[in-house]
Amino acid sequence: MKIYNKSQIEQVTQLDLNTLAAVENGFKALGQGNVTMPPILSMAIEEHNGEVDVKTAHIKGNERFAIKISPGFFDNPKLGLPSLNGLMVLFSAKTGLVDSVLFDEGYLTDIRTALAGAISAKYLSNSEASKITVIGSGLQAELQVAAIKLVRPISQVNIWARDNTKSQAYKQRMEQRYDLSVSVHSSIQQACQEADIIVTTTPSKEPLLNWEDIPSGAHVIAMGSDSPHKRELATSVILNAEHLVVDRISQSESLGELRGVDKPLTRSLVELGDIICGKHPYSRRVDDVSVCDLTGTGVQDTAIADYTAQQLTSIQSTM
Amino acid sequence: MKIYNKSQIEQVTQLDLNTLAAVENGFKALGQGNVTMPPILSMAIEEHNGEVDVKTAHIKGNERFAIKISPGFFDNPKLGLPSLNGLMVLFSAKTGLVDSVLFDEGYLTDIRTALAGAISAKYLSNSEASKITVIGSGLQAELQVAAIKLVRPISQVNIWARDNTKSQAYKQRMEQRYDLSVSVHSSIQQACQEADIIVTTTPSKEPLLNWEDIPSGAHVIAMGSDSPHKRELATSVILNAEHLVVDRISQSESLGELRGVDKPLTRSLVELGDIICGKHPYSRRVDDVSVCDLTGTGVQDTAIADYTAQQLTSIQSTM
Repeated sequence: MKIYNKSQIEQVTQLDLNTLAAVENGFKALGQGNVTMPPILSMAIEEHNGEVDVKTAHIKGNERFAIKISPGFFDNPKLGLPSLNGLMVLFSAKTGLVDSVLFDEGYLTDIRTALAGAISAKYLSNSEASKITVIGSGLQAELQVAAIKLVRPISQVNIWARDNTKSQAYKQRMEQRYDLSVSVHSSIQQACQEADIIVTTTPSKEPLLNWEDIPSGAHVIAMGSDSPHKRELATSVILNAEHLVVDRISQSESLGELRGVDKPLTRSLVELGDIICGKHPYSRRVDDVSVCDLTGTGVQDTAIADYTAQQLTSIQSTM
Repeated sequence: MKIYNKSQIEQVTQLDLNTLAAVENGFKALGQGNVTMPPILSMAIEEHNGEVDVKTAHIKGNERFAIKISPGFFDNPKLGLPSLNGLMVLFSAKTGLVDSVLFDEGYLTDIRTALAGAISAKYLSNSEASKITVIGSGLQAELQVAAIKLVRPISQVNIWARDNTKSQAYKQRMEQRYDLSVSVHSSIQQACQEADIIVTTTPSKEPLLNWEDIPSGAHVIAMGSDSPHKRELATSVILNAEHLVVDRISQSESLGELRGVDKPLTRSLVELGDIICGKHPYSRRVDDVSVCDLTGTGVQDTAIADYTAQQLTSIQSTM
């Protein structure tokens, strides 16, 4: 049994096309019906404003499966600690013996979450999409752009966030790290005006993005909502978009953007994996609006953990 | 963050009255409504005849909570490996940071499972119970007796198991290790004739124990069934026993002995924790038959893991 810390993991698994391919294969296997993925285990620790989620999945034929434990303790910043944390335990899919423990402190979750956005953009957005609008200014506001840049020729970023100071810090960071031009906006409407891709990355409890805000031809990635009290998209977005895709229907209905929709859907609802594996054909007109709700799935965790374990093992064997 | 292996854990946590008190406090807190305990996460790895269960619970006010991961891979014995395995990860209940990892290989599960039987006997059986009948010859057939011996003056063991060779080995083992007199029987009826306590410890898929087999005054502990395809007690036992107790109603209905009962219950159904904390008064006549179905709960895991971590920490601080 091997134990790895975050810095060892960061050395082998990065936001690049290899890692993207690993996560994409996870989604593809899900579409092909080759994944066992039980519902998320979730527990609140109310007295300390905390919660813990456990996600897992097994991809048939894979040598290992992962169980990911993600605590989120939202008073931690007051103690100078990050809110999110966690680890992944990899097991042999043949014997159930522990293969390795990845003390990634949530790093692999950040990466696989950003890559899901990129995979969504790769399959669902217009291929020449270059202007991206980001709602929110946290870590995913950065990583989603960095990931989508792997698959689309992104050159311009527009941002709106509640806190203008954070928007300005974001602009500086993105211009320095990624050589992107960033414009800060004072309203969501303005920020979205020219968007080819819109990514919502907030923990909002009320819808932020309305149908009127979305220009024709845009692809919307809603990745913020991952619990029953969060919501980023107005019902009008869900009902009017020409294409409606989610990572997992059951999760989107219980934790994601479909939860707040109290009217019958007007479009067929498709899982991203079904499009990736070709089971559901997808073609968009250049003016269509597409929406993809990402709640975060166990198969992404198992896929990136198995990939990371493979990289760590092959590095060790060449030493 | 500390990491402990099985032999370190075995040194501090044993089948004794201190560990019993820790697990009993977990049940008591559950009865008092001071425990958050989500449903079990369960995943099958069909291609390798495996499964993995994740259990957790948080006892309000406790410094730590545990998440237990238990893989069961039933072809492992062909490879010379044990079927059951696992580890527990302890987190700070205040920050969600990993406190420690207990690589106990299932040891703590064995102990807390046996202690639940003892706690059931302590609260539900006649106080002078001295004759115990065990159905099955596996590890729990041994540990249940050893645990119940902590709380009742057990002097005589009667055993029935499918495989007579294993029954004979059991007799030898129990006589040597525990100085108990053991009689091997060729039928369940015969084995149960004089029982004060009956413990069923098998992975049976069909009921083994019938109402007619149970002498008046006996306390029955059914601890084998912990998944939707297992069952040890005939419906007649559930319907006729004067007292019907379970560790967790929702689990007994989905994984335990209540699952197979297709008639309305004739007795009130009580959780063990409600009796321990005094919420539900329990008094038995000496001739009453009581039944307790144990499926194994996350609060037992959190309680024994937290106790173990305390012991390990206090040993370290005195070194």
